[in-house]
Amino acid sequence: MEVERVRVKREHLEAFCQQVFQSLGLSEQDAQAAAAVLVAADARGIPSHGVARLWRYVNGLQAGVMVPHAPIEVLVDTPSSIVIHAHGAMGAPVSVKAMKRVIGKARANGAAFGCVRDSNHFGIAGYYAMMAMQEDMIGIAMTNTAALGVPTFGRQVMFGTNPIAFAVPADGEQGFVLDMATTVVTRGKIEVYERLGKGLPLGWAVDKTGRPAREAHPLLDDMFHRLGGGILPLGGLGELLSGYKGYGLAVMVDILCAVLCGAPFGPDVADTETSSGRVSHFFGAIRIDTFRDPREFRQDMDRLLGQLRNCRPAEGAERVYFAGQKEFEAEKESLRMGVPLLAKTYDQICAIGKAHGVSLLPVVEQA
Amino acid sequence: MEVERVRVKREHLEAFCQQVFQSLGLSEQDAQAAAAVLVAADARGIPSHGVARLWRYVNGLQAGVMVPHAPIEVLVDTPSSIVIHAHGAMGAPVSVKAMKRVIGKARANGAAFGCVRDSNHFGIAGYYAMMAMQEDMIGIAMTNTAALGVPTFGRQVMFGTNPIAFAVPADGEQGFVLDMATTVVTRGKIEVYERLGKGLPLGWAVDKTGRPAREAHPLLDDMFHRLGGGILPLGGLGELLSGYKGYGLAVMVDILCAVLCGAPFGPDVADTETSSGRVSHFFGAIRIDTFRDPREFRQDMDRLLGQLRNCRPAEGAERVYFAGQKEFEAEKESLRMGVPLLAKTYDQICAIGKAHGVSLLPVVEQA
Repeated sequence: MEVERVRVKREHLEAFCQQVFQSLGLSEQDAQAAAAVLVAADARGIPSHGVARLWRYVNGLQAGVMVPHAPIEVLVDTPSSIVIHAHGAMGAPVSVKAMKRVIGKARANGAAFGCVRDSNHFGIAGYYAMMAMQEDMIGIAMTNTAALGVPTFGRQVMFGTNPIAFAVPADGEQGFVLDMATTVVTRGKIEVYERLGKGLPLGWAVDKTGRPAREAHPLLDDMFHRLGGGILPLGGLGELLSGYKGYGLAVMVDILCAVLCGAPFGPDVADTETSSGRVSHFFGAIRIDTFRDPREFRQDMDRLLGQLRNCRPAEGAERVYFAGQKEFEAEKESLRMGVPLLAKTYDQICAIGKAHGVSLLPVVEQA
Repeated sequence: MEVERVRVKREHLEAFCQQVFQSLGLSEQDAQAAAAVLVAADARGIPSHGVARLWRYVNGLQAGVMVPHAPIEVLVDTPSSIVIHAHGAMGAPVSVKAMKRVIGKARANGAAFGCVRDSNHFGIAGYYAMMAMQEDMIGIAMTNTAALGVPTFGRQVMFGTNPIAFAVPADGEQGFVLDMATTVVTRGKIEVYERLGKGLPLGWAVDKTGRPAREAHPLLDDMFHRLGGGILPLGGLGELLSGYKGYGLAVMVDILCAVLCGAPFGPDVADTETSSGRVSHFFGAIRIDTFRDPREFRQDMDRLLGQLRNCRPAEGAERVYFAGQKEFEAEKESLRMGVPLLAKTYDQICAIGKAHGVSLLPVVEQA
């Protein structure tokens, strides 16, 4: 039987990715941050943002789209705010630094926010929001992305998948971590339907005339050439299910990430054949103890999350989850059994490692 | 021909409502704030939150659910935060005061946030977020509401319509004002379908078994008696259109409004036969000039909003709007022609006025 999935120890996978990044010119510290963010996605059951993307970062670094030793230029620095020009740095390391700065400022100031402009894909937004949790702070992270979303009643792309992450700690529970694209789905899901040759569900996307897109292939093609058509905002087509709400949230993210720091926004954030567009991020931290005792807050969070966990499921459904719950469960399992990787992902990253003089990853389990 | 709609000058309508509120024991200042928030909804084309609700406030004040001279107790007061115990005050006046305090703190501190607990319905969330705009700040306002929303895969109500409002200024354009319930629709829309005897669209609500609710009447009845069933979060049923995202946003609002200040949350926020549940609000303000020159920010906002305004519409659609655009257009028309009211709403509030010794409202136009 063919091996479909393997498991690798988290620390091995992190060290492996770190070595690959170092071989491409990243400093030890930056390589470690980039590896930690990437592997966190796999460990938390979000493989779409995990090491399956390693080749993209490798390509980006090799093509010069991502700059290994980009200067981190601080454009604005006040007690409550920071604006960083990333000059094309890799998204994850500069974002970890930015969020640390924001948390440090919030510690002194109660609340603080930061923008990072001219950056690259930063992985899972939730990673940065979660950095605030162990400090008993509310964490916020957002990013704009290359435009692929179409406004309600429109036919042209005007915003990206523009995710919002929001994390707060709990006590016995591990916390509430919302991490969501503001489009109804991401391009990755459309690509899966393309590969399967499946018709797209109503409410996911519109074609170049602005009518519901039913076929993935021509849609992706028209989107790529900016001929019209794209993914719908959360809430879907038109007004029946309130698509204008997701549209509004996507624009809100663009305002906070890009307009607030003078970076490109909307359709100006674009991938080309040779490079991916520079994107901008927004980070925030708010100290819980400026409102109430953090321990009492965390205990109330346990109560809230327990209520949701125990909500009576619909007929035919097994469980009700709260945001982050599945990911924390996946993370526990990854700790116990190793981080799960598709065999083809494992093979792919081993090949990348080989090409960069990084030795093969030991496997702890095959299934 | 029967008169269907009348128009009333905004200042007349505000003065009228103010007098009604003063006759019920509100101070001049509080009555004026309550009137301004209520009338702003009608002026901005959101009659669901306008003077058609005047009777509810009158009933609330007469029944003692809303307390005219409730002490405004400041529980926490730091440079970046404030927590106010409203002791059952009317929502609007205490919220105007809270948002003013938050704006004042942000002026000194860069960013500030506030919670108001044990309050009542505060009208349109956008009103408070917009207060920050003329100060060149980003404004945020949220509130929890009586629980009527069902989590993804659940069958019991666990959160309210929990709106999010987010407002930023522009230069030539009037600004971006997102004001949205995080449920796919509000109860008001379900009630409209009940009156019309229309079947509910798929994706709006589930019945007491957790399956799609098609009939409004039994749904509202079961919801009222907490037998199960309720409105779905933004994104609708299950995972196909990402209903868990709206669910996550609704819980985020509950955390910021209620858990953060120790107030009741989730299903504990409930209306009963005799009273509406006490709710909690969250307000925020962030100074734009802690990131960049506000004038340049506003000019970029014009560019962003212009792009959205000019997005090519879908076949069969007329225009693409950005959040707040329709409302600003309605407000301009209300200024020029008077605030539009349904004739039956006009008659209803005149009757309320008569009962409280407030003289009739002059009408500027009948249609």
